[in-house]
Amino acid sequence: MAKIKVDLKERSYEVIVGAEILADIGKIIESEKWGRDVFIITDPLVNDLYGDNLRKGLKSFKHHTIEIPRGEKNKDLKIASRVYDELVRYSAHRDSLIIAFGGGVVGDLAGFVAATYMRGINYLQVPTTLLAQVDAAIGGKTGVNHPKCKNLIGSFYQPKLVCADVETLTSLPARELRTGLAEVVKYGVIEDADFFKFLEANSHHLNTKAFESPDTLRASLKVWQIIVTESAKIKASVVAKDEKEAGLRMILNYGHTIGHAIETLTRYRAYNHGEAVAIGMVAAAEIASRQKMIGTDSVLRIVDLLEKLGLPTEIEGLPANKVVQALGIDKKVMAGKIQFVLPERIGKAVVADNVPIKVIKSVIEELGCR
Amino acid sequence: MAKIKVDLKERSYEVIVGAEILADIGKIIESEKWGRDVFIITDPLVNDLYGDNLRKGLKSFKHHTIEIPRGEKNKDLKIASRVYDELVRYSAHRDSLIIAFGGGVVGDLAGFVAATYMRGINYLQVPTTLLAQVDAAIGGKTGVNHPKCKNLIGSFYQPKLVCADVETLTSLPARELRTGLAEVVKYGVIEDADFFKFLEANSHHLNTKAFESPDTLRASLKVWQIIVTESAKIKASVVAKDEKEAGLRMILNYGHTIGHAIETLTRYRAYNHGEAVAIGMVAAAEIASRQKMIGTDSVLRIVDLLEKLGLPTEIEGLPANKVVQALGIDKKVMAGKIQFVLPERIGKAVVADNVPIKVIKSVIEELGCR
Repeated sequence: MAKIKVDLKERSYEVIVGAEILADIGKIIESEKWGRDVFIITDPLVNDLYGDNLRKGLKSFKHHTIEIPRGEKNKDLKIASRVYDELVRYSAHRDSLIIAFGGGVVGDLAGFVAATYMRGINYLQVPTTLLAQVDAAIGGKTGVNHPKCKNLIGSFYQPKLVCADVETLTSLPARELRTGLAEVVKYGVIEDADFFKFLEANSHHLNTKAFESPDTLRASLKVWQIIVTESAKIKASVVAKDEKEAGLRMILNYGHTIGHAIETLTRYRAYNHGEAVAIGMVAAAEIASRQKMIGTDSVLRIVDLLEKLGLPTEIEGLPANKVVQALGIDKKVMAGKIQFVLPERIGKAVVADNVPIKVIKSVIEELGCR
Repeated sequence: MAKIKVDLKERSYEVIVGAEILADIGKIIESEKWGRDVFIITDPLVNDLYGDNLRKGLKSFKHHTIEIPRGEKNKDLKIASRVYDELVRYSAHRDSLIIAFGGGVVGDLAGFVAATYMRGINYLQVPTTLLAQVDAAIGGKTGVNHPKCKNLIGSFYQPKLVCADVETLTSLPARELRTGLAEVVKYGVIEDADFFKFLEANSHHLNTKAFESPDTLRASLKVWQIIVTESAKIKASVVAKDEKEAGLRMILNYGHTIGHAIETLTRYRAYNHGEAVAIGMVAAAEIASRQKMIGTDSVLRIVDLLEKLGLPTEIEGLPANKVVQALGIDKKVMAGKIQFVLPERIGKAVVADNVPIKVIKSVIEELGCR
């Protein structure tokens, strides 16, 4: 089991990474005195698969489980309202504790409810998807969607603990695992060349096939622990330096500028978050290469690793000019305020807002035609 | 014009108290660079009376005014949702600034929206009622009501500035002014004997009659500036020591234990907040006197001042046993976890949770029968 500190002064907390550790959470709550009444907020599938493991450790607590429907489209004020209702019905009070137990949707919504119930009560993040374990659950970003804009309503509200059990990854569909891997690769590119190398060397472990036989399962769980731990370390260190995304935290947006445009254009269907980010990372690396900031060999390594992990590196079924339009730069000469995170080498990236528009267009066109 | 600092480290801000200073707010926003796009959230009456004064100073800004309906019953997630919609429609962004311009309902709701729009944007409190100027606008408590519980959904989120213009008090109905005075008297009792004396000496100014002739208006505005300033100082110093109401801030609940029961029982109609608190303050003083904590002369001074200000000091039209029931102590021998703030003398109060139930009952019965 690994422990990583997210250093935010009086709001500091730990990220714990391990395998089959759900039942241990109760002991930690008990010794830390985070609350006697526990409310688990989760979704039906996670509850079915792992709810009992978590509750096994909560025998000495009064606890109640609240299920919310799965899917990003349910991450809204209406569902949050229902959770408030249920908390009131079961007399949740200032000293109650919320456990956000699931993927990103559960984490964001339950975190937001914790941030706003009685002006903020304690909560833990217990993420069960790779994307949530390496990214969403760490850093205190909480929120729900507005019909016109994702995550528009929310707050920065740090949990008391993040507990990532890699055993929950073994039930993820292949595509869900891959979407998380895109963010993992991102960490390697922006911050840690050795980690990137580790991913290259272990790419054969990083798929759902490895979960199928008991032998490869055990080996791969060890690899996953390292991956989640190293990713959490990088995320934690960036968050510690810039809690509210005033500057440095933007580095985490590598691949997200063009990725977000692709995601929006395909309405989060044709490409999911990680897939769109994978394409965005290739695009940003290509832009950096055209600007003579990074060598073509490094760009190739990024493309190769993503491909080995089964992630897309080209835009299919989407006209390049649509992507350019979605970036809102089609009428400008310079990208102006549009920020790109550009790698200088594997392991280091910078924020740039002075990329010439013709370079962006040309890279997008190339990614769309190859 | 007086300036009081609310000392909360990186979240510190000033409370400015003056007369006819609404038009100056724009200059402050400009020099502090709090945002270029300004969204005024207010209600129709405040907007009619003072909106143009405020907007006069905002000529160099893009600004938009959002009206929300008046009344505590409208302080809910539905109205907050409408405000989010309007902010999105007018492209409010991370660097936009919200001005909460009105009484407690506007301040709480607009503060909550500011706390949660894009995970928190800058906002100012410009309170226009006495209650909001001396209490609600200072300290960063924001929130909306849940059908089952007032202020259940909210957060602690500090404004960048509180600007209290006492000129806005001159349009308040007499009863609205009195409800604020109850909190003012509270500050004197719990923290400042000199301020209490000042209130005794100036009680003849403290009513709407003083606003009727130009001569008394001017004199009374000076008194109101002192009152709002001194009250803000006390509130600011308590908040600075206990931002999130973990301990000391509870002292501000003097009069609120029984007051809240009365308010709830009469559904915020027969008695408004200040009136219920006035009765609660007499009750708590009487309890302290029975416990030999405070002299009867001090209790009499509290009762006298409240009466001079036109505030109730007895419970009318409400059976004493209902109040006892509402406190949830009718079946207990000791009040147990029910906390009372009890004055030890004028200018000092303590928190007690060991008041014998028979003392509480007897005091309530006496206040209901006199």
